[in-house]
Amino acid sequence: MDSRRAESFSDGVFAVAITVLVFNLLPIADKTAGGALTLTARHLAHYWAAYLAYVVSFLTIGIMWLNHHTMLSQVTRVNRTVLVLNLFLLMGVVAIPFPTALVADHLTGRDGGGGQATVAAVTYGLVMIAISISFGSMWVYIASHQRALAARRQVHTPRLSTFRFVVGNAGYVAGTLIALVAPVAALIIFGLLAVYYLFEHLPDPSGDGNAETGGE
Amino acid sequence: MDSRRAESFSDGVFAVAITVLVFNLLPIADKTAGGALTLTARHLAHYWAAYLAYVVSFLTIGIMWLNHHTMLSQVTRVNRTVLVLNLFLLMGVVAIPFPTALVADHLTGRDGGGGQATVAAVTYGLVMIAISISFGSMWVYIASHQRALAARRQVHTPRLSTFRFVVGNAGYVAGTLIALVAPVAALIIFGLLAVYYLFEHLPDPSGDGNAETGGE
Amino acid sequence: MDSRRAESFSDGVFAVAITVLVFNLLPIADKTAGGALTLTARHLAHYWAAYLAYVVSFLTIGIMWLNHHTMLSQVTRVNRTVLVLNLFLLMGVVAIPFPTALVADHLTGRDGGGGQATVAAVTYGLVMIAISISFGSMWVYIASHQRALAARRQVHTPRLSTFRFVVGNAGYVAGTLIALVAPVAALIIFGLLAVYYLFEHLPDPSGDGNAETGGE
Amino acid sequence: MDSRRAESFSDGVFAVAITVLVFNLLPIADKTAGGALTLTARHLAHYWAAYLAYVVSFLTIGIMWLNHHTMLSQVTRVNRTVLVLNLFLLMGVVAIPFPTALVADHLTGRDGGGGQATVAAVTYGLVMIAISISFGSMWVYIASHQRALAARRQVHTPRLSTFRFVVGNAGYVAGTLIALVAPVAALIIFGLLAVYYLFEHLPDPSGDGNAETGGE
Repeated sequence: MDSRRAESFSDGVFAVAITVLVFNLLPIADKTAGGALTLTARHLAHYWAAYLAYVVSFLTIGIMWLNHHTMLSQVTRVNRTVLVLNLFLLMGVVAIPFPTALVADHLTGRDGGGGQATVAAVTYGLVMIAISISFGSMWVYIASHQRALAARRQVHTPRLSTFRFVVGNAGYVAGTLIALVAPVAALIIFGLLAVYYLFEHLPDPSGDGNAETGGE
Repeated sequence: MDSRRAESFSDGVFAVAITVLVFNLLPIADKTAGGALTLTARHLAHYWAAYLAYVVSFLTIGIMWLNHHTMLSQVTRVNRTVLVLNLFLLMGVVAIPFPTALVADHLTGRDGGGGQATVAAVTYGLVMIAISISFGSMWVYIASHQRALAARRQVHTPRLSTFRFVVGNAGYVAGTLIALVAPVAALIIFGLLAVYYLFEHLPDPSGDGNAETGGE
Repeated sequence: MDSRRAESFSDGVFAVAITVLVFNLLPIADKTAGGALTLTARHLAHYWAAYLAYVVSFLTIGIMWLNHHTMLSQVTRVNRTVLVLNLFLLMGVVAIPFPTALVADHLTGRDGGGGQATVAAVTYGLVMIAISISFGSMWVYIASHQRALAARRQVHTPRLSTFRFVVGNAGYVAGTLIALVAPVAALIIFGLLAVYYLFEHLPDPSGDGNAETGGE
Repeated sequence: MDSRRAESFSDGVFAVAITVLVFNLLPIADKTAGGALTLTARHLAHYWAAYLAYVVSFLTIGIMWLNHHTMLSQVTRVNRTVLVLNLFLLMGVVAIPFPTALVADHLTGRDGGGGQATVAAVTYGLVMIAISISFGSMWVYIASHQRALAARRQVHTPRLSTFRFVVGNAGYVAGTLIALVAPVAALIIFGLLAVYYLFEHLPDPSGDGNAETGGE
């Protein structure tokens, strides 16, 4: 199958998944409506965890889209194996709004705090680790089947790229461990990892190592 | 109409439908928030049926997208009949999150178990059978109107393909019957059927019988 | 602006809007969960109005997508006026899940019946009339600005097409009036109108009057 | 990266975000169902704020899509900086349904009125200001890096365009200030600003200053 088709479908899934994140904000309007409650700025501020989780997850999915595109743009066609690996990757990406909702609802102390914030942040981290592993598997497969997938240009640095994946993955593992004692800090670390991936990315198919000016 | 346009719209619908599945997970965050309840790992594990249903339905829609693409890539244009058959097919695909929600909410014993798990799993199976029939109808129509639809390459094995559809369909019927006595087993069977369709697929338009390296 | 871009965005909106319809089914799983209630086939059957509304609205949006595509494929570029008319048309299409939800919740007698079924079905009809008028306006504008929009082929039968729009629109008006006394019958009429538009469609840009074999 | 890819992903996000707006209408069907309440036209009319917010936000996102497309069509490729600015812009656009929900739920007096309508409308305005600033930043960056981004045609009027952004932004600031004393008037102003942007838009890449006939 032409790799463009797989990219196009994946793009659609990424676009929907990133937009679904707003559904973690919408209930705030409901919760503050009705009853004796009057909406004040303080009520809105009360849900800071939901906004933070929204920003972190939005950046994360956005960066994943970027790197997913870079990864698939290495090749011109995909086989069933790539498609299945891709499906598992997307399964993780689509699930992101769920741990985001857990964090949004449970990070603050209002629901009891402590223990449940930990459970929420750890779940978030585990989903990220799963996605990170999917990403790594797909990259390793693509990098080692360049000929069969009609790669646009030989990637000579699978080792370096793999190293980057390991670093990123280690970051998620570290974040998840930190979540055990400091859930809020962990969420901020997950956000910083998105920023990390923003600058430390896969080699561009244009091959000059500078994705910034890479055309097609 | 150019078949690419129909594919593009269908792709969008598949992408949204597959992402909608996460909405069966989001309420878990709400259900575990508020009240006297504290979120624990055990609470999250309690909803295993929702996660299982998510995985099974995600794989199912993903494989359907794959086979839908292969089916439409046989031809270069589509007529109104194909579009209408396609619309009915999509109507079934878009509905998948509904039986998925039924299974997610009713498969476990906590809501009373037994009878209602059966109703949920049987409904799931019936929707799958309906989609399977839609798929079969569309394939039979396309295979028997190859000239009118400007097929890229003559498919000489409609009989074999039809056989595959019948096998797959029989699988869903069997799964639905099993759902009457063992709902959880039925859901697992539906998951295995997705894996079956992953390997037993339609002939690729490249015609060498090897979809793995088939370009356009 | 190239008309393809406008089509592509509109396609995305149509694809999402048609998928949103399933959100009128999802609450059924929740409503039948929890409490002393046990899910039975009869409970599921109880929500027949929701299923009927789903089918009617799905067909309606599907056919609208088809005719929207045919309409925009007449021209090769679009100006701001077309884009604004298109935006109003999409505003109506995106709103369809709302009257669908009204009908799904209020058509059956269980909520009191009678009066409220009428309000729901009439609202449904009014939204359809609004969309129908948007469609007509856009078609009239496109048909009368063919040169400016670089039409692919001169349409010589704007009169006939306009006639068809009037017929379709009259159908929605009639359906809305019927909704005042027989809401269920009205919903079925709206479904039949979708089928009507399925066969009575705009002239195809290939110009041979036979959209079935029209390529690009 | 080819700017078309970034556009395609952004289009998907815009399409989903604009469709998510209907989720502020769907609960109306639920709220009017069940209980002793009978659905009447008056009940539906009661939610006028939700309909007004839907129309204003729909037009706003629609116009933003239009201008976003015009902005990206100036260039043929995008670098990481543009992609990140774009991601922040989309983060604001995707969030729009949230302040829309606040306004829909709190603008009318039924929830207490006064103070909370102000909070809702001010929040709406602040989100708009944030998006407006994102838009301006991205435009300034693109306008000042035309060579690096392989602009299709030199834009000689960044000053005028920047002026337009300042005017638009000042409009949102003014609207937000007005929201402090007259929330409903502020929402109408936000709607008028969408209409303003509809006619006062960015220079078209075709360069003749007339976007209406601008092809690609």
